[in-house]
Amino acid sequence: MGEQDEILGVNAAYYRAFAAGDFAAMSRIWAEEQVSCVHPGWPVLVGRPAVLESWRNILRNPAMERIEFYDATAMVAGDEGRVLCVEIVGTTPFAASNWFRRIGGAWRMIHHHASPIALQAEDDAPEPGSRRMN
Amino acid sequence: MGEQDEILGVNAAYYRAFAAGDFAAMSRIWAEEQVSCVHPGWPVLVGRPAVLESWRNILRNPAMERIEFYDATAMVAGDEGRVLCVEIVGTTPFAASNWFRRIGGAWRMIHHHASPIALQAEDDAPEPGSRRMN
Repeated sequence: MGEQDEILGVNAAYYRAFAAGDFAAMSRIWAEEQVSCVHPGWPVLVGRPAVLESWRNILRNPAMERIEFYDATAMVAGDEGRVLCVEIVGTTPFAASNWFRRIGGAWRMIHHHASPIALQAEDDAPEPGSRRMN
Repeated sequence: MGEQDEILGVNAAYYRAFAAGDFAAMSRIWAEEQVSCVHPGWPVLVGRPAVLESWRNILRNPAMERIEFYDATAMVAGDEGRVLCVEIVGTTPFAASNWFRRIGGAWRMIHHHASPIALQAEDDAPEPGSRRMN
């Protein structure tokens, strides 16, 4: 499996943990150090305690909407890589940047930034055959 | 000068180019490969041609508002690093993630993601002594 497929796999695991409300899995996906996160509409969160606290609150929301992702693009350089994708939460699209670092042979998340998409690109609609989660 | 100060310097140069509408400087700051960008409300842009085209359009806007940044935090690991900060465009705050890679000894931008801050953290107001651009 190539490095791009590896981080696409971790990216998919991240969305599975998110969709399942699985805080333990989410906690394992995030790295121990140099982590940061920007949820839609939120200020920047820096450090594992602040980032995991935000996820604990988000994932225990009983009204959490269905989440899926589309159109994932991976780029890897050395021990760092990013996955860019579209998140759909309920019916609302978000642009997501997910950054990963290879630590002890495993890719862990070091940064997430998601923001609402107000401007629709002409080719923005998911096409048949584009990557989907599951 | 430490690595954190180096990428804080490039981050400041990025905002100077942005504030001055200087497309040539902005073009030099961005790397040649593996670049991506998410402007507030926009979908993900991948690749230098798409990213620079977006900047050409943004920077030639004659009604562009004043832009400043605050509260910059830098993290470096090897040849990659990020700066997290608050952008103020006009009077609107944005959370920004700016990623840089050391290429041929110089730090170049490889990713920018900015999103409106709707939720105000209690300690969100810039404090005296926080980093400012100028």
